[in-house]
Order: sequence, then C-alpha cells, then structure tokens
Amino acid sequence: MRIQEAEYRQRTEKLAGHVRELGLDGAVLFDPAYVLYYVGFAFVPTERPMAFVLNADGEGGMLVPRLEREHAQANALVQHVADYPEYPGEKHPTESLRALLGEMGLGRLGADHDGYPWILGYRGPSLTELAGATPVKVTAFVEDQMAVKSEAEIALIRESAKWGNLAHMLLQRYTRPGLTEVEVSQRATNEATLAMLDAIGPIYRAQNPFFEGASAGYRGQIGRNAAIPHSLTANIAFRNGDVLVTGASAPVWGYLSELERTMVIGEPTAEQRVMFDHMVALQDIAFEAIKAGARCSDVDHAVRAYYEEHALWDYWKHHVGHCIGLRYHEGPFLDVGDDTEIKPGMVFTVEPGLYAASFGGFRHSDTVAVTDDGIEFLTYYPRDLESLTLPA
Amino acid sequence: MRIQEAEYRQRTEKLAGHVRELGLDGAVLFDPAYVLYYVGFAFVPTERPMAFVLNADGEGGMLVPRLEREHAQANALVQHVADYPEYPGEKHPTESLRALLGEMGLGRLGADHDGYPWILGYRGPSLTELAGATPVKVTAFVEDQMAVKSEAEIALIRESAKWGNLAHMLLQRYTRPGLTEVEVSQRATNEATLAMLDAIGPIYRAQNPFFEGASAGYRGQIGRNAAIPHSLTANIAFRNGDVLVTGASAPVWGYLSELERTMVIGEPTAEQRVMFDHMVALQDIAFEAIKAGARCSDVDHAVRAYYEEHALWDYWKHHVGHCIGLRYHEGPFLDVGDDTEIKPGMVFTVEPGLYAASFGGFRHSDTVAVTDDGIEFLTYYPRDLESLTLPA
Repeated sequence: MRIQEAEYRQRTEKLAGHVRELGLDGAVLFDPAYVLYYVGFAFVPTERPMAFVLNADGEGGMLVPRLEREHAQANALVQHVADYPEYPGEKHPTESLRALLGEMGLGRLGADHDGYPWILGYRGPSLTELAGATPVKVTAFVEDQMAVKSEAEIALIRESAKWGNLAHMLLQRYTRPGLTEVEVSQRATNEATLAMLDAIGPIYRAQNPFFEGASAGYRGQIGRNAAIPHSLTANIAFRNGDVLVTGASAPVWGYLSELERTMVIGEPTAEQRVMFDHMVALQDIAFEAIKAGARCSDVDHAVRAYYEEHALWDYWKHHVGHCIGLRYHEGPFLDVGDDTEIKPGMVFTVEPGLYAASFGGFRHSDTVAVTDDGIEFLTYYPRDLESLTLPA
Repeated sequence: MRIQEAEYRQRTEKLAGHVRELGLDGAVLFDPAYVLYYVGFAFVPTERPMAFVLNADGEGGMLVPRLEREHAQANALVQHVADYPEYPGEKHPTESLRALLGEMGLGRLGADHDGYPWILGYRGPSLTELAGATPVKVTAFVEDQMAVKSEAEIALIRESAKWGNLAHMLLQRYTRPGLTEVEVSQRATNEATLAMLDAIGPIYRAQNPFFEGASAGYRGQIGRNAAIPHSLTANIAFRNGDVLVTGASAPVWGYLSELERTMVIGEPTAEQRVMFDHMVALQDIAFEAIKAGARCSDVDHAVRAYYEEHALWDYWKHHVGHCIGLRYHEGPFLDVGDDTEIKPGMVFTVEPGLYAASFGGFRHSDTVAVTDDGIEFLTYYPRDLESLTLPA
C-alpha cells in the first residue's frame, strides 16, 4: 500500500533535475515532510539534526544521529550515510554534515533552510557558515512538486478518508447531551484506531508526528465556542441545541485526509437551518469551481461572490481551503491571493465556513482530488442536515 | 495555577534589557514556545504567520490572523495587535508585520528566525528583506533565559508529574500478556486524562501542540523493539519475558515532565537483572553528579566513567538527559559537549540507557529540579525492579 521505490526515485530525479538546471552540485533538505517525501524516511525532528542530501547525479545521502544509523542504511534510496554519536557531543554534528557534503562532491548548494533549524535546544551553524556560501532556496520547487499527487498518493489519501469516516461515524453515534467532548472523542478515536490497526495489520505505519491512528473530535468547537474556528478543547458537556463542528482523519504512511461536519443536537432552529443551508451552498459553489486549468483564486472569488450576494461577510473568517497530503495544510490555497493553476492530481480541502458569535460555527470540510474533468470526492460522509441532526 | 502576569512582565523586561544592551530597537519572535513563554499566548503554528514583537521599552505587539485577533487583544501583555484577513490573501501578511514594526518604532531588530519559517505551505519574505537589514539572532539568549525556571514554573512541572504518575500507574496496572500496546495505552491515557480534567476543572489548559491531557504508553519499545530508543509504535501484543520501556507525561499550561520506566513481564532473567541494575546505577550516578555550580558535561563524564568501568559501551546510545519545560526537549544537555554551568532552577530529565539488540532496552527517566544544595525529584514513581515486574 505504501509508496514504491520507483516512485521515490522519480521524485528525487525530478529534484536532481532542478538542481542541475540551477547549476548547483546538490541540495540539502531538513524539513521532515520533505525527507519523508523523497526517501520515505519518517522522523520526529528533535535537537539531533537530520538532513537528506541529494547530489546532481541523483545520489542520496543522510545525516543522522547514531540512534538512526541502521534505519538510514536500510533505506535503498540513500547511498551515503553520515552519523554522529550525539548532540551536542564532543564534535558538533554539522562536522559530519560537512564531511558528507565533501564525500558527495557538493560545493554549490540548494536547501530548504539555511541550516538545521534551532529547535528543542539545538544550536549550530548555518549552511552559509558551513559551506562558505548562502544556499539557493529550493523550497518553492519542492512545494510545487509535492502539490501534484500521483495515483499512489491519492490512493493513500483515499485510505485515510475511509478510516476518518469510521472515526466520524462513531463520533456521531456516541455524541449525546450530558456526555463530555473528551470522553466521546476518546471512545470514537480509540475504537476506530483499534479497528484500523487490526484491519490493515502490522504493516501499518502512521508516519505522522501527531497521530498514530484514526481520530475524530470537536477541538472545543461546541455550541457558542464553535464560532472560534480553531479554539482549544475544553472539557465541555454537550447540550441540546448545540451546533457542533467535527474533525476526523487518519495518517496512512504519512498521508492525511480531512473530514469535518457541522452537526446539531436536537431539532434545528430556523436560524440554524438558514446558516447550515448557506454553508452547504458555499461548499457546492466551491466544488463546482474547482477544475483543472482554473486558478485557485477563482474558487475563492466564486465563493466570496455568494457571501457578498447574501450579505454574509459578518460570518466570514477564512478562505475556502488548502492542499493536503503529507501535511494537514499544504499550498496552494483556495484563496483570492493564490493564482496557482489548478492541476489534475492536486488534492484540496473544501471548507468555506460561517461563524456567528452568538450561536455557533458552520463548516463542512471535504477532501477532493482534481481529475481531468472535475473532482473526485475522497471523503464521502453525508452532508445534509437531516443526516447530521443528533437526538436531543 | 498558571503563570501570573507579573512573571510574564519580568520575562519580557529581561528580554527588553538584552535588546537594549545590543543597541537594538526591539525583537521579533516566531517560535510558538517563545511566544508562549513571554506572553502566555498558545497557538499551533500553521501557514498563517504569527509573531510576537517586543520593543526596547518593553511594549509588546502581536501579528496574528484575523481569526486570532480577539484572542491577542485580550492579552494584557500585548499593547499593539496587527491582524490580516488571511494567508496568502490579497495583501501578504508580512505587510501587516511591516506596519506593526513601524508603529512600534522598530528599525534595528533582533529575532529568533530571519522571518516566519516556511511551514505548511507558507511562503514569504525574510526579515532581512522586510526590514532591509539582517536581524541579530537572540535565540541563544532566549534559550538561556528559559532554561532557568521560576518557582511557579517548577510548580507546574510538579503538577505535570502528578498526572504523568497517574497515567503510568494505570499503564502498569493494565499491561498484561496478550493485550496490545495500543489498547493498554489508550485505556491508561483516557482514564488519566478524564481524571485530570475533572480534578483540575474547566480552567485547565494543555497549551501543547501534541497532547490534551495525561498520557502513558510504550512507543513501540517492547521486547526486542526496546533496543531502538525512539522506535515507532506498532500494534504489538505483550508477551511473557518482554522488557518494556514506558513514557508518561501531561501538559499543564504548556509545562511538561518526563517519566519513563523499564518494566519486565514475568520473573526477570539473570541477564535482565544485570542490565536493569547497571541502568539504575547509571541513573544514581547522574543524580549524584547534578549540582549547582557543576557543568552539564561533568554529569555525562561521571556516567560515562561507569560505562567504561563496566565495559558497557556496546549498550550506550545517548547522553544522560536534557532540560525540559515548555518543550519536551530543551537545552542545556547533560552531554560531554555541553559545558553550561548547572544552576538552581534548571529542570533536567535524567535518563541514561542501555540497549541490547538481542533482548531489549533499559532506561528510566526522571525529572529533577536543581536546588541550592542538590536536586528535588519532581517524578517519584518506584524505580526498583520488584515494583516494576508485571505478572506473567
């Protein structure tokens, strides 16, 4: 189910081609999502620096702490492994990086960052200091490459959507007035995760720093709190009349989908119906507008025209959506400020929202893949109010 | 229970003093741990840039997306709030940052990064490009400041340790041969989290990007897998004879503790006893060596002498420990390469380990605070083999 070696080789070859076009000897990538993308090596970044190095011939190398040496050596896409015993250590780990660059014949460099970022207590020299010249930023190229998914990538996102769907189904089933958000989210998340692990079996790898299986929850978006799109979870009990905004996903070899639904506990009020219907209409406009050859900004403009036409600006808080894949947010964005051309293989979340401070937030999010002649829905949970009304 | 406003003011005043010493007009911080440290504002970084700005007079400002405006304005430590509607938006968010810098009279800048990092699809100019001069890096000063904890910070880490202890107690109680790692971790984590939320009440805030309550688990460190210190969790069932390495913690207003224990299922073998006893001896040496006025490297040297004396180098994989606080890893490090002076108020994890590829890893981790005349144990779970032997 995971990405095959040949596909990783295509990916690195494409980057090597870019490196050659720029007249560089190679590139150094520190971002764990990029390392996962090019060589399938998953790690949680710490103060122990890691890097993927690619030379213009397409040979790969990795800098890893000794802890990870065998893991890196077992990776068929990495011909050169430089390890260091520990950070800070008696010799700074970047000395090993310097040696690796020498071994691979790298003088003029591209990079995503000018040196390993100073996270979790790490301190060290920039690549500029290490190599004597400021690296050429290749981040935009990498991001553009990652934005267009292969069939295998879309299959993994589809698989993610299936387990997100299970978690969401359980979340909806278990949500009742009087229960707390945390206990319901735990129950749905746990059961979906156990089912997923037993269904896929021991080959399953999450390859995600945040989640180890399927999950569903509310992130505090309950009742009046729902008006705050990314509010922090508090230990709130559900009440009749609450408007709820959910979220569900599952990492599958690093790939993610996004499923969000607006639900109402008890018979919806007229006011809630109006907002819900507008929200669904906004999302329908977006689905219609996403097509290969259009610009990302076109989609946001189309959706914004509806806000304008129906005087909904007071309830607007954010753009229509973003790409998704190895990270839960990726560019390009369905935003008036993003004129990137939409291409087949791009996978977007579609999630225009309405937020009323007085009675709640309204947002569905679906994950869709752009095809040659439209979109394929990767998420498929019911979107209508009747299906999303919970017993009081 | 959370950090009081006066303490935040002392923190920002100290940074402002550093800014004045450097002859700068102010500083810009992008790292969410730093923003949390100086103004208590918690956020999960996304492609929507956020920044805390401090001028040399100690006035604070924040750049936030419109989504977070009210949240920032409600913060008493922030006098200037600049918001932008969305990223990418019709106008790049850094234009709002530029305006904020102007409003606060900032020309010559310090910073933690040269611009908001390019994460989750964000692309934008560096501070160098925005302000016309490369910012002076203030990261090391900030890290040094954060390394020495106040009484209030240590109290929060102590509180974290209490809930980590509960989660660990439940983990040990529920772990039995035939059950899987995931189901046992879920049960312990869920029950400890619900107890914690109900005990502390609705004021509780995790302020952590990874965890929303107490947790305990094995991260795949079971039986033979235990030899890989940070291996990924797989859906493994416990077996008689397994050596297990645990981990437990709980974020409390951002602050973390670390509790790890080595446990054995069934009567320990002679070989397991030998390794366990060496591991406890290594940790005892470290506890003894940590004292105000010593250097961090002294502790690692003392521990390494024991590896040397008992010919244990084949089982060595990493240094003794690291500081902990708002991040689960912070500097300085108990490492031969770190000559930082140990000061009262520093909080360290103490976790020398032994890893035998054939039968498992052995590591306890305790969290200790440095006092004027020794250390205070913030974690207090039993450390002896008898207490950590599970029924077969």
